[in-house]
Amino acid sequence: MRNSIGNNVVLTLFGESHGSAVGAVIDGLAAGIPVDQDFIASQLSKRRPQGPVDTARREKDQYQILSGVFNGRTTGAPLCIIIPNEDVRSADYEATRSLARPSHADYVAQVKYGGFQDYRGGGHFSGRVTAAIVAAGAIAIKALEAKGICIGTHILECGGVRDTDFNDLGSPESAALLESYLKAVNEKDFPVVEDLKEAITARILEAKSDSDSIGGMIQTAVTGLEPGLGEPWFDSLEGVLSKALFSIGGIKGVEFGSGFGFARMRGSEANDSFCMIDGKVRSLTNHNGGINGGISNGMPVVFNCAVKPTPSIAKEQRTVDFLKGQDAPLCLKGRHDPAIVRRICIVVSSLVAIVLCDVLATSRGTDYLK
Amino acid sequence: MRNSIGNNVVLTLFGESHGSAVGAVIDGLAAGIPVDQDFIASQLSKRRPQGPVDTARREKDQYQILSGVFNGRTTGAPLCIIIPNEDVRSADYEATRSLARPSHADYVAQVKYGGFQDYRGGGHFSGRVTAAIVAAGAIAIKALEAKGICIGTHILECGGVRDTDFNDLGSPESAALLESYLKAVNEKDFPVVEDLKEAITARILEAKSDSDSIGGMIQTAVTGLEPGLGEPWFDSLEGVLSKALFSIGGIKGVEFGSGFGFARMRGSEANDSFCMIDGKVRSLTNHNGGINGGISNGMPVVFNCAVKPTPSIAKEQRTVDFLKGQDAPLCLKGRHDPAIVRRICIVVSSLVAIVLCDVLATSRGTDYLK
Amino acid sequence: MRNSIGNNVVLTLFGESHGSAVGAVIDGLAAGIPVDQDFIASQLSKRRPQGPVDTARREKDQYQILSGVFNGRTTGAPLCIIIPNEDVRSADYEATRSLARPSHADYVAQVKYGGFQDYRGGGHFSGRVTAAIVAAGAIAIKALEAKGICIGTHILECGGVRDTDFNDLGSPESAALLESYLKAVNEKDFPVVEDLKEAITARILEAKSDSDSIGGMIQTAVTGLEPGLGEPWFDSLEGVLSKALFSIGGIKGVEFGSGFGFARMRGSEANDSFCMIDGKVRSLTNHNGGINGGISNGMPVVFNCAVKPTPSIAKEQRTVDFLKGQDAPLCLKGRHDPAIVRRICIVVSSLVAIVLCDVLATSRGTDYLK
Amino acid sequence: MRNSIGNNVVLTLFGESHGSAVGAVIDGLAAGIPVDQDFIASQLSKRRPQGPVDTARREKDQYQILSGVFNGRTTGAPLCIIIPNEDVRSADYEATRSLARPSHADYVAQVKYGGFQDYRGGGHFSGRVTAAIVAAGAIAIKALEAKGICIGTHILECGGVRDTDFNDLGSPESAALLESYLKAVNEKDFPVVEDLKEAITARILEAKSDSDSIGGMIQTAVTGLEPGLGEPWFDSLEGVLSKALFSIGGIKGVEFGSGFGFARMRGSEANDSFCMIDGKVRSLTNHNGGINGGISNGMPVVFNCAVKPTPSIAKEQRTVDFLKGQDAPLCLKGRHDPAIVRRICIVVSSLVAIVLCDVLATSRGTDYLK
Repeated sequence: MRNSIGNNVVLTLFGESHGSAVGAVIDGLAAGIPVDQDFIASQLSKRRPQGPVDTARREKDQYQILSGVFNGRTTGAPLCIIIPNEDVRSADYEATRSLARPSHADYVAQVKYGGFQDYRGGGHFSGRVTAAIVAAGAIAIKALEAKGICIGTHILECGGVRDTDFNDLGSPESAALLESYLKAVNEKDFPVVEDLKEAITARILEAKSDSDSIGGMIQTAVTGLEPGLGEPWFDSLEGVLSKALFSIGGIKGVEFGSGFGFARMRGSEANDSFCMIDGKVRSLTNHNGGINGGISNGMPVVFNCAVKPTPSIAKEQRTVDFLKGQDAPLCLKGRHDPAIVRRICIVVSSLVAIVLCDVLATSRGTDYLK
Repeated sequence: MRNSIGNNVVLTLFGESHGSAVGAVIDGLAAGIPVDQDFIASQLSKRRPQGPVDTARREKDQYQILSGVFNGRTTGAPLCIIIPNEDVRSADYEATRSLARPSHADYVAQVKYGGFQDYRGGGHFSGRVTAAIVAAGAIAIKALEAKGICIGTHILECGGVRDTDFNDLGSPESAALLESYLKAVNEKDFPVVEDLKEAITARILEAKSDSDSIGGMIQTAVTGLEPGLGEPWFDSLEGVLSKALFSIGGIKGVEFGSGFGFARMRGSEANDSFCMIDGKVRSLTNHNGGINGGISNGMPVVFNCAVKPTPSIAKEQRTVDFLKGQDAPLCLKGRHDPAIVRRICIVVSSLVAIVLCDVLATSRGTDYLK
Repeated sequence: MRNSIGNNVVLTLFGESHGSAVGAVIDGLAAGIPVDQDFIASQLSKRRPQGPVDTARREKDQYQILSGVFNGRTTGAPLCIIIPNEDVRSADYEATRSLARPSHADYVAQVKYGGFQDYRGGGHFSGRVTAAIVAAGAIAIKALEAKGICIGTHILECGGVRDTDFNDLGSPESAALLESYLKAVNEKDFPVVEDLKEAITARILEAKSDSDSIGGMIQTAVTGLEPGLGEPWFDSLEGVLSKALFSIGGIKGVEFGSGFGFARMRGSEANDSFCMIDGKVRSLTNHNGGINGGISNGMPVVFNCAVKPTPSIAKEQRTVDFLKGQDAPLCLKGRHDPAIVRRICIVVSSLVAIVLCDVLATSRGTDYLK
Repeated sequence: MRNSIGNNVVLTLFGESHGSAVGAVIDGLAAGIPVDQDFIASQLSKRRPQGPVDTARREKDQYQILSGVFNGRTTGAPLCIIIPNEDVRSADYEATRSLARPSHADYVAQVKYGGFQDYRGGGHFSGRVTAAIVAAGAIAIKALEAKGICIGTHILECGGVRDTDFNDLGSPESAALLESYLKAVNEKDFPVVEDLKEAITARILEAKSDSDSIGGMIQTAVTGLEPGLGEPWFDSLEGVLSKALFSIGGIKGVEFGSGFGFARMRGSEANDSFCMIDGKVRSLTNHNGGINGGISNGMPVVFNCAVKPTPSIAKEQRTVDFLKGQDAPLCLKGRHDPAIVRRICIVVSSLVAIVLCDVLATSRGTDYLK
């Protein structure tokens, strides 16, 4: 399945950083879902590099829908969307093509593809491919919105600066507040709940000025998801979400609800007691991040992702020349992000939306999202 | 795919806590792999409750191989292994069947299966099903061993007591030491590197005496994995492993290498510089847990799992009666583990072995493991 | 996927002719489907050898349900059903184990599994495995019946004797007659519409007395299937049905509606004109076997399967000893069917029922069949 | 999986007859396979309408490879190939959009997609999509050729005119002759072994002059396939090939080797006796079409497909207006093929090549085709 994910709504990715285009096929979407072209464009703009903390590569991201949409709605046939590459400077990569950039995929690609890989800008491993996820995900996000499901991702922590933790909003009374936060971060160009854009930007620029990069942690919440979605074992909500999330370069950890915090808790603290509220089963706390036994329990689904520092840094590094088989110093030119925490948020929300469309189609049938 | 996982080596689980048997079908294994019946039995004994820190339920775990083995070796046909249930006390569950145990799957099962689920002992959600993973995984572990691949899982932290961190053994020189640790923890009945069995047991018994339970963190390392295994996007090693891991009840977080620690690192610290050692590409550190761009890089694969406290506790809890639709107090009888960190280690190693057999079959062809 | 089929309702087979048991796991069935144990037994009895035209091997087919059923209904968890083997005479196969029986899988199994295959009685290739299909299919058949869907398979032709052709009942007026025929053949021990049991039996016994075997053609019809099921390309109804059907040993051709007859027709004859009948769209003829563009059109789904003569014959044959690498004569002992057209009918209906449960779950969601 | 097929080499189709483009993603191909752009173009030209027996729609089929190829070879990343649509006359379809063309998918599409389908020219159901199969298949054909595997498809019968039957070339001595025939039909613009182009063309034009269309039968052979490929049950070679073949509009029957001819044979005639030839196991006849027990036996794989007459005919037909819910006469304008037997041959060979790449990758590992 390699570059495809999903059982009933299936996303397939293709494209390279310096090839003609990146793109996605999304198959299995219900017919009749409205396709809001302005929303797709606006989502792409959120992923796009835009200021001093992002790479200097500037792509217009003029996407084209090649199939699956007719008269402004999905047809039920596979939807192919492509985003041509334009601002390509492949020459940056020729000189260093056999130098394995540390923590990048250059060396493993060489081993796996035997030298036939497109090595320019990371080729198919490039974060550029996530533009296709965002474009396809925009349609999924709107389809879920129509069902009352809202997804939002924010920077939880970067450079020691920490935003509101959605896990602190786990009580039934906090539901409305959480949803308002999600909507707010979805509108912002810098996705944080509190007024932290400048503080975080300062930390990123500090790293940049040191020819370095920094990591961070992002947090996603999904509200409005009905209980009963997911499966007991391998298609648990945690399992299908994490498989998708780990495909994004830079994500090295995923935790649901209290996650690694559970390691230091007792059952009496960690258990989410159920209660009846307005005739519905709710839990008083949400340490489990809205998931019990792999299945949604009607509370918000909340999870954190660890994002490693961008491996491309301007500082000189030690590495090997894998064609010569010898050690070599590495000085990267290229254009890189000193931190990807901002840009990755929209990618995560988009991918999560596609996964949830799949989960809903599996449980409720293809036509549910129509 | 629900209860199946894998592309070329496919594991399918079935069974309930209080039904006739739990079992697994493992399909796609190469023909000719030796099946060591004593090893299967010994692996099962490691998962089995055995002392004061485990549940009082005592199962003999007399497994039966129904198919796929002939003259002591795999035949290439699907291998079905079952473990009959014996020490079943279903009556424990009748009185409380409509009370949703907090942080358990009772409520979501009711929603999803509409009351038709086997509610006794958690039914198909029960940790009892992992006995089948261990039995099937024993064959996979031996097949990998024959290829020089070693898997070990230990308790990294429980009750504030912390064992050796394999991430501190990330340098090429530490490889032999790491492997010796893996072999050691695989032999022990209490899987820790250092002499911590008593300290951890004391913390667990403390929680038990408080009618409570505790969580922890476990850590797995895989040595001997060649570089080039895995895929760039959705079948990344991180993705396929995490999907499998999150199927295990109680695991709520997965991080590779430095994982959430990356959030506070800079690129210059986090990057693993490559170097040539004895003609092979290695990295000086292993913050990435042996995986770059979703693909093994030849260094040990290392990851941590967060384990939540067992949700079954003897303390009275608040919950709802989902048939009556009203709040209700809950006092659990049954027989439960005050902590599952010990028993889960062998389950994780077993499941990881099966996933790696699949990854190897996909990259190298079915016959590779023969 | 090897021994599994289906996207949402997934059937997995295991077992060998002379191993402990054959069995099936069926995963993804809705919770709450009644499981009629007498019906399973009666379906198995239809597949069982029973008279002079069948093999002398006599199995009681005492099936056991290991999981997925509770209080007489499916639970939604994977259902494992096994049928232990009892009347096994493995010694019959020892003497000839390296002689490749012509048109059997002995030689290809040796190549594929390198000598590790269970060669006794064809091992996992044996028709014995279809007992598990029949047992699992019985549950699917009942689930479909509850939705008004009826499946029947009869011997269309054997030994030159030909039964009623369901393709002649393609008009809307013939619908009730067709359904009555389906119900009738499902009740009979010898599945033919007309009074042909003796004529066909005579031809089979004639072949048997010549130490030979004969082939035939079987025909299946499905009524009550709503329009709109299936997919345009690779999951066309024809595609998913044929993939399942060709898994059955002995089936070497599948045709839908007029099938190979289309080769000699003109469009004006072949096209099924639509008309309105009682406010519903119907077609005046049913040359397309109820499927247009891969999708059900509301008319009965009708298809034929070619069944080759049983390859096991008592006549001496030429073959090779694949271990010695030389030509060798072959005289089969064992116990074999001179024709399998009778026994295969129930297997086909059962497998088709499982495939249709999958198609319905995919289109309508898992709960549709509840 | 809808519009995708394959386990390890996965083909995904997209596009509509009158949309921007049709296309395919082929994922899982080994890195390093040469991509011969002239060969792709020449294969597309064989599918292209070209004379009086084909539709008047004329497409240039200027394909573009968007990803997965670098420096003239596959990279191992997903390969996306698109073919823009140019000669589109959508107005032909507006007037009749709610009239269900008999034996077409118009009615089932309306039911399945609820009116949101792209109805112009059959939308995603259109044979136009097969251009993408041919383009992707050209790469697969070359990859197989490099391994000594040759695929050819010819018109076996049309309008009562019958070509050489490859089943008559089943003996080991005929192998070279068969392969020469395959190469010959692959070179011809009208794929028949004997000098039958004019005779068949005359029959097609005869039908056309009657405002009608005709069906036929095509036959495919694959030589050079090693024994041991395929699986015992659901991934039998027959199963995976037939699933692919039935996706092609117009194919309504598939038979392997003697196929439906087996129905009138005895075992002693039908069995293919094995013999040793030059140290290899061969069979004296090839009634089984190179497949035993679902697995290749080293003899040529041979199968026939029934092709129904093109449903679009100029003759007036009865049908329904599905929006008005009433009967209506239908007079088709548009541009249609009076027979598709010629154009479908290259589509079948292309699709078979892709399926066989998948089968080889599954058995031998991804890198086998490099």
